[in-house]
Amino acid sequence: MRARLVDAAIAQFIRVGIQGASLRAIAEEAGVTPAMLHYYFGDKRQMTLAVVQERLLPAIEPLRAGIEAAAPDAAGLVRAFVEGVGDMVERHPWLPPLWIREVLCEGGALRDALFKGLIPKLPQRLARGFATAQAEGRMHPDLDPRLMVVSLVGLTLFPAAGAPIWRQLFTADDIGADVLRRHTLALLDHGMGAGRRDAGRRGGTTG
Amino acid sequence: MRARLVDAAIAQFIRVGIQGASLRAIAEEAGVTPAMLHYYFGDKRQMTLAVVQERLLPAIEPLRAGIEAAAPDAAGLVRAFVEGVGDMVERHPWLPPLWIREVLCEGGALRDALFKGLIPKLPQRLARGFATAQAEGRMHPDLDPRLMVVSLVGLTLFPAAGAPIWRQLFTADDIGADVLRRHTLALLDHGMGAGRRDAGRRGGTTG
Repeated sequence: MRARLVDAAIAQFIRVGIQGASLRAIAEEAGVTPAMLHYYFGDKRQMTLAVVQERLLPAIEPLRAGIEAAAPDAAGLVRAFVEGVGDMVERHPWLPPLWIREVLCEGGALRDALFKGLIPKLPQRLARGFATAQAEGRMHPDLDPRLMVVSLVGLTLFPAAGAPIWRQLFTADDIGADVLRRHTLALLDHGMGAGRRDAGRRGGTTG
Repeated sequence: MRARLVDAAIAQFIRVGIQGASLRAIAEEAGVTPAMLHYYFGDKRQMTLAVVQERLLPAIEPLRAGIEAAAPDAAGLVRAFVEGVGDMVERHPWLPPLWIREVLCEGGALRDALFKGLIPKLPQRLARGFATAQAEGRMHPDLDPRLMVVSLVGLTLFPAAGAPIWRQLFTADDIGADVLRRHTLALLDHGMGAGRRDAGRRGGTTG
């Protein structure tokens, strides 16, 4: 029952935002009485906390762990990020639209929960890895190590969040997760100038 | 006065969304009475239409025209897009946050206005240009021409919209429009495999 109520909260948060979502609407979405929702969660702040702790944290954890465990070179970090986000959005399709509305939007209610609570050091760790790669001549000098982190998000989470739009614009239902991943890795590996070193180890680009 | 009222509407739309914005709050923002607002615009639908016609259309027009006039090869389209978006967001800083909330968010109120009204053919034109480049061997075979359009947006409009976040995360106030543009073009030119042909014509990467 608790899981069903949290699911209903996420659905409402995506549709009208956390600020606009009422406990009454969440209860309706879940098919229970507002009293039942109140019994489980108290108020909307507690409800939001449950979404963060019981959904967002476990959804992001494999991505975080994958990047921690990745080879600290630029190509290793990129691969861990692209594959980690790919797996995450495949398993948790509610995550990209929630991220758009509650992190990216001005005044997003989950911005602090994400960057201060869930992944406090991840962006900096990635930027440091790219800075090292660049200092060692393994990343194009025109690139900025911090902007590389922004580019990574713009090439993974953003396309996932915008998928309903571009799939309709381009009648692109034929583009699966594998095509998306290959496209993203090709653009990043070659764009960073890290592709050539990596290509030998991976044994070509087919598959 | 009309311009001041449209500005106030945009500020409210960014802050609480078109659905959440009331004529009363817009009037307060502009420092006028709701009756004055009603006199100029009638209702919120008319107010929204004014934002589209009097702000969004002229803001996007130079980008659209720049892409229309660009060399139809992949590198030319990329350059026109990156520079067009760069100029657009520099001149109209309200545009990225409005785009996030009213185009990208589920149920965004300006999605149809943008893709059916303002730029009905632009995404397809870009995708066709990339498909041609790929067919002629001038774009990496692992890339998808339609996803290239999504990548372009993810590397231009998305970083502009997320700037308040990444500037704070990375204490990155030192990153100016020129660094951002050079980073984006380097990633795209090399990532697409179009960089080498272009490099000769541009005479190096310094500047």
